[in-house]
Amino acid sequence: MTLYLVNGSTDAQVSPLDRGLAYGDGLFETLRVHRGRIIFLEAHLARMQAGCTRLNLQFNTEAFRPDLQQLLSREQPSDGVLKLVVTRGVGGRGYRPTAETSPVRIASLHALPPESASPGNAFVCRQRLSLQPALSGIKHLNRLEQVIASMEWPDETFVEGLMLDYNGLPIEGTRSNLFVVHKGTILTPDLPACGIAGILRQYLIEKLQPEVFVEAFDLHTLLDADELFFCNSVLGIMPIAAVHTESTIVSFRETAVTELAKQIFRTALQTC
Amino acid sequence: MTLYLVNGSTDAQVSPLDRGLAYGDGLFETLRVHRGRIIFLEAHLARMQAGCTRLNLQFNTEAFRPDLQQLLSREQPSDGVLKLVVTRGVGGRGYRPTAETSPVRIASLHALPPESASPGNAFVCRQRLSLQPALSGIKHLNRLEQVIASMEWPDETFVEGLMLDYNGLPIEGTRSNLFVVHKGTILTPDLPACGIAGILRQYLIEKLQPEVFVEAFDLHTLLDADELFFCNSVLGIMPIAAVHTESTIVSFRETAVTELAKQIFRTALQTC
Repeated sequence: MTLYLVNGSTDAQVSPLDRGLAYGDGLFETLRVHRGRIIFLEAHLARMQAGCTRLNLQFNTEAFRPDLQQLLSREQPSDGVLKLVVTRGVGGRGYRPTAETSPVRIASLHALPPESASPGNAFVCRQRLSLQPALSGIKHLNRLEQVIASMEWPDETFVEGLMLDYNGLPIEGTRSNLFVVHKGTILTPDLPACGIAGILRQYLIEKLQPEVFVEAFDLHTLLDADELFFCNSVLGIMPIAAVHTESTIVSFRETAVTELAKQIFRTALQTC
Repeated sequence: MTLYLVNGSTDAQVSPLDRGLAYGDGLFETLRVHRGRIIFLEAHLARMQAGCTRLNLQFNTEAFRPDLQQLLSREQPSDGVLKLVVTRGVGGRGYRPTAETSPVRIASLHALPPESASPGNAFVCRQRLSLQPALSGIKHLNRLEQVIASMEWPDETFVEGLMLDYNGLPIEGTRSNLFVVHKGTILTPDLPACGIAGILRQYLIEKLQPEVFVEAFDLHTLLDADELFFCNSVLGIMPIAAVHTESTIVSFRETAVTELAKQIFRTALQTC
């Protein structure tokens, strides 16, 4: 049974008329708990605050701090995942918010999913990411593209699905960001029109050496890469051994940058 | 206070962990009640069923029939709006649905919003509709584009916002479909990559004379039209007197086809 707080209370419920449910009108964050500490807390709250600004949602993410405190002191988890959701609240039946809408926040604590130590396979999803600059980067609640993509791979030997944008350019995993090493250059896609600007992605951009190039690259470059890994702030680095396209399987032989990224994440777990 | 049923019960609640809230993983319909009867009921249930197929959501929309019966017999509304929502239910924290997910249905009864008898103004929204063939046509719960667009117009003298697609082609209103009459030809946009395939839109395509051409047209054609109206199955026909773009205001002088569409909707209220 997952523990959750709605507006700070264990008794409160979400209205079936909440705009988060009606329209996906809100934002979320998933945070890693390691040895009782929340990793990258400030960066997560800052990203959600930026998302509120983008959606014109009047909410101060500071309101989540006592909730996080309460969940941690109740459960005393060593490792785990905290999920934060903010919605615009209940506000009529129409898309246009009314002045009376008051944001609803949900904080929940979950078990840490199992981490895969050894490199896994990735599946190139047919489902594409649409181009929508108004929503790119932020972690909003409209996630049907990810839901559809995540149903595509046949079994659990695949650890992640690679998503391409509407034009066929690699962008991210269904629940993670993407890094490749191609001819000695570390690349991660820029996200002008789709994708989520991950917290660990940003941290790796700042910490990895040699320099990470944040720029678009095509599927041929990806399949020609020496290394490929996905990352998110809950699972850390997800090394990929092979990518399965519709017609071929491409393996990656090198691991040096992936190991470096793992080391950076391990350090972050101790210090961030 | 709006009356609602969750899985047929007035006591049940929606879990804060429901995938409808977490990802917008579900579908909805809004149905018009007129003199105690539900208009276009079969078409609404069929559209939702088609949406379930598209999202691979295992649900039979027949489950809503007793809910509708219960709401109508409790409240005996003369006029009103029934809203149906189905979500994939509660299923973990990841995008990939688990085998245990069981759909959740919500049926609610609302007051009919006021209808505007006289022609109103429409606002050309800056927010565009992204291109996503996997989701076009169906009435899913990922509606942030509509939420953002509906915040754009400055006051309630505007009755609807016109939404263009990523390429700038007119598609629909934020909560309605679009018809124009241009040089004697009735046009409504086709929806291969975005937009909702409205129930009243389809009915008008079948009933209007002369023949409706379902095809893409550009903003210049729209601004050069003789008539423009929006429609949905709750409010019926929304005649438009003028469209406000960033640089100009364009008025429409003719009303013959709009009046014909109104007559078709009035007949539908009696017979469908």
